[in-house]
Parts: sequence; C-alpha cells; structure tokens
Amino acid sequence: MKTDLSYLRDIYGKKAVDRAAAMLQDLEIEVPSWGFGRGGTRFGSYPEVGDARTVEDRIERARQFHTRTGQGRRVAMHFPWDGETAEDIRGLAAALRRAGLEAGAVNSNLFTMRAGDGLDHRLRYGSLTNPDKEVREASVRHNLDCVRIMRILGAKTLSLWLPDGTNSPGQMSFYDQAERLDDAIRAIARALRPGEKLLIEYKIFEPGMYSTAIPDYSRALALCEIAGKNSGVLVDLGHHAPTTNIEQIVAFLLRAGRLGGFHFNDKKYADDDLASGSIDPAQLFRIFVVILEAMARRLVRFKDIAFMIDESHQIKDALEEMVESVTNIEIALAKAALVDFDKLWRHQRACEISAADSVLHHAFHADVRPLVEAVRTERLRSRQ
Amino acid sequence: MKTDLSYLRDIYGKKAVDRAAAMLQDLEIEVPSWGFGRGGTRFGSYPEVGDARTVEDRIERARQFHTRTGQGRRVAMHFPWDGETAEDIRGLAAALRRAGLEAGAVNSNLFTMRAGDGLDHRLRYGSLTNPDKEVREASVRHNLDCVRIMRILGAKTLSLWLPDGTNSPGQMSFYDQAERLDDAIRAIARALRPGEKLLIEYKIFEPGMYSTAIPDYSRALALCEIAGKNSGVLVDLGHHAPTTNIEQIVAFLLRAGRLGGFHFNDKKYADDDLASGSIDPAQLFRIFVVILEAMARRLVRFKDIAFMIDESHQIKDALEEMVESVTNIEIALAKAALVDFDKLWRHQRACEISAADSVLHHAFHADVRPLVEAVRTERLRSRQ
Amino acid sequence: MKTDLSYLRDIYGKKAVDRAAAMLQDLEIEVPSWGFGRGGTRFGSYPEVGDARTVEDRIERARQFHTRTGQGRRVAMHFPWDGETAEDIRGLAAALRRAGLEAGAVNSNLFTMRAGDGLDHRLRYGSLTNPDKEVREASVRHNLDCVRIMRILGAKTLSLWLPDGTNSPGQMSFYDQAERLDDAIRAIARALRPGEKLLIEYKIFEPGMYSTAIPDYSRALALCEIAGKNSGVLVDLGHHAPTTNIEQIVAFLLRAGRLGGFHFNDKKYADDDLASGSIDPAQLFRIFVVILEAMARRLVRFKDIAFMIDESHQIKDALEEMVESVTNIEIALAKAALVDFDKLWRHQRACEISAADSVLHHAFHADVRPLVEAVRTERLRSRQ
Amino acid sequence: MKTDLSYLRDIYGKKAVDRAAAMLQDLEIEVPSWGFGRGGTRFGSYPEVGDARTVEDRIERARQFHTRTGQGRRVAMHFPWDGETAEDIRGLAAALRRAGLEAGAVNSNLFTMRAGDGLDHRLRYGSLTNPDKEVREASVRHNLDCVRIMRILGAKTLSLWLPDGTNSPGQMSFYDQAERLDDAIRAIARALRPGEKLLIEYKIFEPGMYSTAIPDYSRALALCEIAGKNSGVLVDLGHHAPTTNIEQIVAFLLRAGRLGGFHFNDKKYADDDLASGSIDPAQLFRIFVVILEAMARRLVRFKDIAFMIDESHQIKDALEEMVESVTNIEIALAKAALVDFDKLWRHQRACEISAADSVLHHAFHADVRPLVEAVRTERLRSRQ
Repeated sequence: MKTDLSYLRDIYGKKAVDRAAAMLQDLEIEVPSWGFGRGGTRFGSYPEVGDARTVEDRIERARQFHTRTGQGRRVAMHFPWDGETAEDIRGLAAALRRAGLEAGAVNSNLFTMRAGDGLDHRLRYGSLTNPDKEVREASVRHNLDCVRIMRILGAKTLSLWLPDGTNSPGQMSFYDQAERLDDAIRAIARALRPGEKLLIEYKIFEPGMYSTAIPDYSRALALCEIAGKNSGVLVDLGHHAPTTNIEQIVAFLLRAGRLGGFHFNDKKYADDDLASGSIDPAQLFRIFVVILEAMARRLVRFKDIAFMIDESHQIKDALEEMVESVTNIEIALAKAALVDFDKLWRHQRACEISAADSVLHHAFHADVRPLVEAVRTERLRSRQ
Repeated sequence: MKTDLSYLRDIYGKKAVDRAAAMLQDLEIEVPSWGFGRGGTRFGSYPEVGDARTVEDRIERARQFHTRTGQGRRVAMHFPWDGETAEDIRGLAAALRRAGLEAGAVNSNLFTMRAGDGLDHRLRYGSLTNPDKEVREASVRHNLDCVRIMRILGAKTLSLWLPDGTNSPGQMSFYDQAERLDDAIRAIARALRPGEKLLIEYKIFEPGMYSTAIPDYSRALALCEIAGKNSGVLVDLGHHAPTTNIEQIVAFLLRAGRLGGFHFNDKKYADDDLASGSIDPAQLFRIFVVILEAMARRLVRFKDIAFMIDESHQIKDALEEMVESVTNIEIALAKAALVDFDKLWRHQRACEISAADSVLHHAFHADVRPLVEAVRTERLRSRQ
Repeated sequence: MKTDLSYLRDIYGKKAVDRAAAMLQDLEIEVPSWGFGRGGTRFGSYPEVGDARTVEDRIERARQFHTRTGQGRRVAMHFPWDGETAEDIRGLAAALRRAGLEAGAVNSNLFTMRAGDGLDHRLRYGSLTNPDKEVREASVRHNLDCVRIMRILGAKTLSLWLPDGTNSPGQMSFYDQAERLDDAIRAIARALRPGEKLLIEYKIFEPGMYSTAIPDYSRALALCEIAGKNSGVLVDLGHHAPTTNIEQIVAFLLRAGRLGGFHFNDKKYADDDLASGSIDPAQLFRIFVVILEAMARRLVRFKDIAFMIDESHQIKDALEEMVESVTNIEIALAKAALVDFDKLWRHQRACEISAADSVLHHAFHADVRPLVEAVRTERLRSRQ
Repeated sequence: MKTDLSYLRDIYGKKAVDRAAAMLQDLEIEVPSWGFGRGGTRFGSYPEVGDARTVEDRIERARQFHTRTGQGRRVAMHFPWDGETAEDIRGLAAALRRAGLEAGAVNSNLFTMRAGDGLDHRLRYGSLTNPDKEVREASVRHNLDCVRIMRILGAKTLSLWLPDGTNSPGQMSFYDQAERLDDAIRAIARALRPGEKLLIEYKIFEPGMYSTAIPDYSRALALCEIAGKNSGVLVDLGHHAPTTNIEQIVAFLLRAGRLGGFHFNDKKYADDDLASGSIDPAQLFRIFVVILEAMARRLVRFKDIAFMIDESHQIKDALEEMVESVTNIEIALAKAALVDFDKLWRHQRACEISAADSVLHHAFHADVRPLVEAVRTERLRSRQ
C-alpha cells in the first residue's frame, strides 16, 4: 500500500490530514497475549502445528506483531495462563523486556479451575459471588495476587472480567449476588495504590445463560462508585444486547469520567470475538467519532483510555488476524479524525441534518489507508 | 370461575394462601385513560362505532373497568389529550369524582404538535433536547403546566416519557443532547413540592430510530440523581433491547432505592404494547418474585411503587383487553406470593440449585385463578 | 465532488474501474412516490409547509430527483394513495409522462381503510387472511384493480406487502391463515399475464405484533411456488429479526432463481426505514458482493432484479434523504464492483482466509465517490 | 405430588382430562446420552467426582432416568463420543439392551477432530462444505459409518447437525458452500434405506460467527427436497434469531409435511441449552398447541415427530435437570391438550378474539401436575 497523501490532502486539506496523522501517532493499542494462541468455541478448537501454545510463543508473536505494526508495545496478560509461580512471573518480565515490550493490563482469571486453592469445581457456582465463602475469598485472593503480579511486571492496570452468573432463575438471589460482589470489589479496590487502576468489564450473557453478575454498564458503573476514583468501566464491543447503541454508552461514560477502556472486537450475533471492524466498520468509526468529540470538548485525553484488543482467533492465523484488527482500528480512527467538528456542530445546532450527516459521510468515505500506512512507517522508523 | 381455595390450601397451606391473598389485596394497579381508546400503528388504526373517543368516553370505560375488577381506582392521564384548558381540567376532576375514580400519574405529552406554542413541527428535532431554545422552553413549560394540572386533579406523580432521539448519526451530538436534558430535568424537578414525584421513563428506540435521549435505565438513573430524592425510574416492560433480563434491572433499581414504577405490557419483538402477560407470563412472574423478595428484605413497600398499565389496544375491545391484562398481572403476583423465600434462600445458599428452582416452579405452576377471583370479589364487596 | 478517476485507476487498474463504471451505468434504482412525502411514526408526523402532500407534489419531487441523480426513472406507486378513480390513474399516467418518468412497481395497499368496499374497520383482522370472506374478496379485488392500474400505467410489476398478522396467540390459527393466503395468492397470480410479475414481500413483525402472515423468506418462497414462474421474493432490508445474515438470504434466493427485488433502507433496531447505507454500509456492500458474484456465476442479470428504495423520511427533507440513499447504494455497488472475484475464489478454495478477506477489504476501502460522480454526470449528460 | 385429578375434572370435565391423559401416554421423549455428562462453555467446564464420564456412565444415568420418569426409553447417541470401533458399538448395543433401553437418533459428529481420518485440524474450515475434497469425503464417510452404526443399534434415524460456517465475510462463497452441501446431502441420503430417516438441523450461528451453512429452516427445507421423502427438518428451540416466532415455523413445517422432530431446550440469549421450559414455558405451550392443532386437522401424528431433548447441563446435576426438563415438556403438552380446539376455532372465525385467547389462557392456567404425575405413575406401573 502506498503512503502518498496527496489524494487525501486534496480533498481534506493538509491541516486536517496532519491532525489525523498526529492522532494516529498518539493512539496506543494494547494486544492480548491470549489472542496470539488458537481460540475455539465450546465445540472445540482446531490446533495446528505452529500455533502459539506457551507464553513464550505468545510473546514471540507479540514481538513480531509489534515489529510489523508499531502497535502492541503493551501486551495484556492473563493469569494463571501466562504464569503461576513467582519464578514464572519474573521470567515473563524478562521475556517482555527482551522482546522490547511491556506488560499491559493484568487480567485475573476466575473461570479456570486450579487444584487446592478453593478455585475448584465450585467455581461453577460463581467466583466473587459464590455462595461459599471459601471460594469468594480465594477469588478475591487471586485478584490480590494479580495486583502483586502487576507490580512485578510494572503494569498499572487490573482488568476484571467476572464469569459469574446463573443458568436458571432460582440459582441465586440477585440481592445476595450484588452484596457479595460489592464486598469483593471493595476488598480488591482497597489493595490498589494511587496510580494503579481497576477496570471493570460488563457482559450481558455467557458463561451465565440466564443472568450475569455485571450485565451492563450501569452495574459496572455502580461498582466503580464503590471502587473509587481509580476505577473505570471497560467496554467490550461484543458484550451488549442486540441492537444496543454502543457509541451512546461510550459518550455517556466519557461524560461521566468513567470510561476506563475498550476491548475491541467485532460481532454479528453474540460475543463472537471476531476481528475488530470486520463486520461493522461504521460502528467502529462512530465510536471513535464520539471519543474524538469528547476530546474536542476536553472531556478526556487519549491516554486516559485503555485501547485494547480482545478477540478469539479461531480460523485464521492469529498474527495475521491481529494485524487486520489493528489496521481496521487505525482506519476507523483516521476517518474519525477527518471529521470537521466545528462544521458538524454548526449544522447540528441549526437543525441542518442532511448537512450534518454529510460531514460524517465525508470523513467516513475517505480512503485513509495511505495515511495509516504512512504513520505506521514513521512509527516503525522512529523505533529503530 | 370458582373462588374455592381448598385446592390451593391443600398444596400450599392456609398460611401461604392467606399471605398471597393479603398481597393481592394490597396491590393497586393504575390504568391509563389512553388505553381505553382504539390504538394503532404507523400504518393506521381501525376505529369502529362504539370506540371510546372523548375523555368522557374513556372515563366511563375506566369506571366500568373499576366496577368489574376493583382495580383501576387511579387513572393515569395524558395531556393535552385529556384536556387543554383550565375548564377542561376542572371538568375532568369532576368527572373522575363522579365515577368514583382518582387521577393517577399525569403524563406530559411532548410528541403531539399544537399550534402557537413552540410545540409545532420543530418537535421533529426533539422537545427537551431540541437545538432550538424556544422549543426546549416550551417543552419545559408544558411539564410545568402538567404539574399545575396534577394539583388541580389531586395527583402526586408526573410521568415523563421523552420522545426525543435521532434518526441518523449526525443529527445531534450526544453531548449537547445530554446537557440540554440535564438542564431541563433540573428545571422540571425544581417545580415539584415535597410529596410530589417525578417518574422518568427510558426506551431503547422509537420514535428515535438511531438513538433515543434516554435509552436505558442507566441514563434514567443519572437523571434521577439530578432530579433529586423525589424521583424514580419508570420501567416499561417493552422498552428494552431483545434478550435483556428485565427482572435483574428491577432488582438493581430496588436495591438502589430508585424503582419508581412500572408500565406493564408485553412484547414479542419491539415495544409491541400487547396485553400484560399475554406473551411471556413467566417473565412477569419473575419480576414479581424480585419485587416480593425486595419486600421480604425490607428494601421496599408496595406503596412505594407505581404499578401502571401502558398498552395499546388495537384489535380487541379495549375494556376486555384491560381486564385480561389486570388479571394476568394479579395472577403473576399471586404466584409470586406463593414462593417460600426462606426455603428458596436456604437452597440457594447451599448451592442446591435444582431444589431452589423447584421452589419457584412450585409457585409458578399453581392455578391461582380461584384466589384472584376470591380477592376480586372481596374487593368489590368492600367497595359497596 | 470531483470526478477524477486517477486515484482509483492507480490502485485498482483501469480495467477494474471501467468495469465498475459499466455496472454503475447498468444499475437502475426505482424510487417510491410515498418516499417523497413526510413520514411519521405511530406517535405522529411533523409536517411542514412545503412538504409534498399530493401525488402531483410527489411526482414533481421525483422529477427533480431524477434530474439531479439520473436515477429514479421509474417511480413505484401506491394505491389508493396515488389515485383511486380511472380518471386519477389516467391523470397520473399523463403526469409521469410529462415529468419524463415511468411507473415502477404498483403497490397494493391493504392497510388503509376505505368506505363502502369491504375494506373497512374489519381490516383490523386482516386482509387476504381475514376470517370474513367479504373482506378477503375485497382484498383480492383491490389487487386485481391494481393489475388493471398497472396496465394503464404501463407498469409490469405488482408488489405485495401484506399487513396481515395477529396481536395475540389466540387470534388466528396459523393453518387457517396459511390456507386463506394460499388461495388469495393463487387468485391474484392468475390475473397476471406473461411478462407481468408478482413480488411478494415478507416482514417479521409490524403491524402484527405477535405474528405476521408472511414472516420470512421461507413463507414468501412457498407463496411464489403457488404463484408460479412470474413471481419472486421481495427483500426489504428492514424486515428481518435482529442479527439475521441478509446477504446469505440474498444468495439463497439468487441460487433458487427467486430473488424478485429489494426494498432498500437501513435500520438499527426494527423496521426503522432509515436512509439506505446510513447505519450499516458494510452490510449493503456485502449484499452487492453477493449479487455481483451471482452475476459472475451467470445465475442472474441486473435487469432480473428490481432495485427499489423504500424508506420513511421523517426528519430530513425527503428529496435530500433520497439523494443520500441513492448515493449510498451506488457507492456500495461501486465498491462491490471492485472485488476481484477470481482472486477471491482462488484464495477461498485454498483456505487462505486472510488473503480472501483482504480482497473484500481492498474493495471496501476504496473511495469510489469520484467514480459514482463521474457515472452520474455521464448519465445526466446522455439524457439531455 | 398428588395424582388426584378431581380439581382438573371439575374445571375441564372428565372427557377433556382423559383425552389429555391419553396424549401424555402417547408422548415419547427421547433423551441424549451427552446430556447426562457435565456440559460446559468455551470458558471451561467444572467437572466433579461422580459426573458421568464414559458411555457406560451415561447409559446408567439414562436407565435411572427411565426408571424414574418412564420417559427416555430411546436414547440419542453421538459418535464417535459414544463409541468408535465395531466392538464399541456392539458393546453399546448390549449395554442398552441390559438397561432396557433402545438407541434413538444417531448423531454424527463433524466437529471433533480425530487423527488419521481427514477429520483433522482442517475441520476448522468446515466438514461437508470444506474447500478440501478430502475433508468433505471423510465427512460424508463418517455419516455413512453412522448409518452402519444405526443398523447395528437398531436405530432408524440419522440426525445431522452441521458445524460448518464462516467467521468472516471473505472466508467462503455462499455459492460454493451451498453446492458442496447439496452434493454431500445427496450422497448421505442415498445411503438410507426405506424406513430410515434423515433429520436436518439448522442453527443461526455458532460455531460459525459470521454465517452457518444451514442457518434457518428454509435452507434445511431445501436440503430435505434434495434428500427426498425420508427426511425432515429438526427444530432446535435454541437455534433461532432473537424474537423469532418458533411456533409459526413449526406450523409451517407441519403443513409442509416436513417437521422431522425437535431438540427441546430453552434459552434467554443465544443457544443457551438450558432446561426445557425453564425460561419461557408459554412458548413451549404454544408449540404444543400448534402440534395438537395439526393433529386435530389430521396433518400429522405424534409418532411422525421425534421429540428429543438437547441440553447442556453445566451447573445442576445432569439427571435432576433432565427430570426437570421432561416434566416441563409433559406439563406443556398436558396444558395444550386441554385446549378446546372447536371452541377456539369458532371464536377465531367469528373474530371474537378475547374469547379465543381465553380458550388458550384457560388451558395454560391449569395446574396439570397431578395429571402428569398420574400418567407417569401409570406408565411406570405398566412397565413392570
């Protein structure tokens, strides 16, 4: 792909293109270590020789990814998948360093059974909301362990996705569930130091099939109120009911000062975990428009938001699909960065709606690939 | 239908049946004046000779409904549909009195154009969130008028459903929209006196087809924070995205002390406004279970919640469909009232999930029609 | 917008761009007369001075539209909205001629009451499936009238959207409904001469809120089997359940030789009737990819498919929104026409999926606006 | 639970209760061997000591289930899960015999990798629709093996659920996919002898996240046309888009003579595989109403339909949840059997819709548990 920007400059003007380039340069996308392995569904996975299986494999792929795209300097980790013992963690820190990478968000894992820790088959009934106090305590403890891991790795963010939920209406009282969860979040948040951040993710369903403990951003927001200032809501694009207007949620959270970050991916049906922007690129564009508008209104800065990918690469080569994803995200941002907000607002406030929509269309229809390519080239050059 | 309770007492015990009867007696369901007219869709309505057309017709139907079911002592009103001038309102108050009824919630109407008031064709761009200040002010003013109407009618509740939204991504900034709405709610809430209540309704879509200004309970909750203590969220069963777990939202709002009330109806697809309990009676049952559990936990009392019907009767006779609806609601409550919560909680806390679910099934499968009929008969007798 | 194609030719090659231009030239989009009026929802419409109100107004707008875009030579009509008496129809034919337009599909209207014809308030219970034989016969008769209107107008297509359905599970037997519908379709199809075509539209819900008589393409297909060779399924993009893969349905119907045509529009929630391509342009692109692939496989020709717009313009100026829509459709087609199918198939058959997806991405990311503009200019020039 | 029928006979009359009892006696529900094991999600499973792990364990549970409920005389099997070698199959046949059970539908498994058979990691790209001919042929061969297994087991039904689909729009051509599938179905159907039946299941998504090869009943129906007379569509209640009216699909298939059978389960969100009737018992009731109406119209007999359970028991004890499910199915049937169709039709045809709906309500609100219990007792007694 060429990096000739003359077509874009002709249409949008040099100033707008430069501004878009600057934004692209500022965007830092974090990639998940688990995304470099072979994903699967409940029906199974189809591994192949050459798939990344160990944490070393995954870090090597992350290194290749970073070398190729300039993105993914920070890699989100998942524990105990990415290490269990203190030695593992120290080895991991060294491996990241060697690869020229940093640890991104540390994700606690409350759905994988491990022996002798309380986190056994009883996880079936929940982790932080389990009726059994022993399991609840072990689940909190695992998060505190993750905080310690964060510090060893030099990470600043604990990312919490809760697999808790129910499969039948009688299984658990919503009130008991909520009380237990409030208590657990309080305990976890207490362990965090200034400068460390807790991201709380919500998800409408799965693995809970009748309900989940944090089904929507409203519940996540209430938990952030408990956790305190250094917490934020984590928006995973695949975790909403069909037809939900996600960009409006993003705007709401930005306005409330509670947008912690994103798990980018795409979906057609449920939490499909497909490549970002592969199904609905216009939605991804609108999400960035809403973010950039908040920036223009000085509600937020890029660096306040954790831009992370969370996908499951089942069919394609994981590295290739990660490149596709990050490229789609950059394309969406670049298009959004071409929106002329002053013009948009002027038309909106005058009820000139066709004209207002045209401002968005004009940006969306741009072929920004040369710009994305140019910034990437520049980014890679500057790293050398 | 017979009112012999021996079958129920045999299975559930006299004490449980008596408790359920007491709850049924305590339940007061409010009916909407507009629900006694002939509803329609955007494709039209099919009126017939004999349909209720005037507010007098609607109050006469409400009177008949109340005489037949003992429910509907309070009738929710919609303005300007139910009257415009001061004389209209005084006439309305008298008519209600004559019919032995009271005014329930006063619903402001921000979607019907009226000449010479700012609420003209510009309503197309929104009411409380309109870019045009004149329309916004007229919209606030209409709500203040409704507060005055409340006082004339002796009503205590202002019910606000906002038709504002957008049909395209460029139409309005979510940030402008939110600011305007916050301001308007502040102005309206300020007009309320102690003992008067503001209910704020949310709706995922329609008439806005790309977004609505209050799409979900989270946004409604944020507006209640602005409005202050005497406000609550109004849950309309038809206003959620497909697959949403409504009973969990109800539990959340009850725990937060912000469940203002319900607009009961049923749906299969969108905001279908079908007869309550006609499509998914099990969901209605679960909603009452969640309410009764909150009562058992002393989080709420019946009288803190406004139980209202909001339906559109397009095909069947409106009076008949209202009777069907209120009966279905009473059936759902009666079943929920047979739930043995102590037993349920015991099983839940011991992870005996099949047993816990059985407690709910046992209540749901009861044929409570004799009980509903008995309480209705008693209620009607006591009114004489 | 400029019409300089050098950017596109640089990237895609002259041959591909020429081929895309040729396809754009071949595409004929039909516009609906009703789309030039002010639309509304069940909550009302917000008309304004200057809105098109009469059929004359609508034809004048259609003329302006055609003059501006070169599309819309054929205008779909809706009866009795666009005329009732024989004189009306003759006047309409003359008006179209004067405007340089032709009548497109003739749409029968089975949801608007008219006096003294059997099509009175009983339409509430259905038209072609009404329990009352008199209403069924009047409904068939109206379609036969529409066939006569077709012939006066020189139209070749009868477009049937059935408002029939039910609002409660007990309202009608699915078996009775299906038998009545089969009979009615048989009677209507019998009236058509060779060269005349019946398009049968399906819709998952609305106005029926519990069921519709033709809810999906499967039922429409079964009716086409009854109607015979000169019938096809009409795919309205807004008429599916959430998450449905529409492009796969299009491929199915093309393969079965039964894709009659499209009603283009866009949606986020239900049958929102928004501007085509305004919410999900990638879906529109994929639909055209599936069509062009069928053409490449010689399963269909452009002229076998009726490309029609069906939208409700509620907020924006109707003419402006129609221009936006047709432009978005042309953009989607132009992008799809840049897909290199030979390359795509080669990669697909070798399980090189990232490469295969890249072929689609490469086409989708093109900025085809200059091409669309160039073809439009040429089209307008050639008309003079 | 008591088995005293006097309450029911008082309300519905002895004749109606007897008729319902006779229908309950006729209903034969098949259970899946895989449903007696511990299910899981893509996030894992939480096995426990005592879970059924081997096919022997599963048959022992099936025996217990049959002894307890009288249902489940036929057990659906899944291969290679339930056996691979000829010796396995003979052992299985003997084990079933010893347990007093029979083999129900034989389910081929095209999603579990096995070495050295073509069904390796390439299954990732599909089975019957795989671009690679070797995998397609191995997939057909596995189905032919299953036919041979059927004959050894004395089974009559091959049940085909296809995991094929795609995760991105470019992965596979819908046309290639359809052609390959048509060919494969033809080859499989050819292997069946008179009296043997092929059931074809559809599913809107999962494991394919962008599309599935048989997404809906329309595609399944088209494949049945290819397969010939001895094939039918298999309706799994969890395999539809949100809001789909399943009972109408059932009626359509019954009318077309193509309803092969059911996979009963329940859902709130996606293919949740929850206990039948645990979330939406009213839908289950409506499905049986539609079946019994077809029987009343002599369109079908019970024995023409395979009533099967397909659930994933993740949290509760599998045996307990299977008992819950079969009981809920029997309850739904018993209620439907109390519908007075003559009365229903009379009201429907006279447009007396409230009265028509009352007929359904009257049946739905019955407490049929004593009847279900009485028939179960009788069934168990007669088996001794």
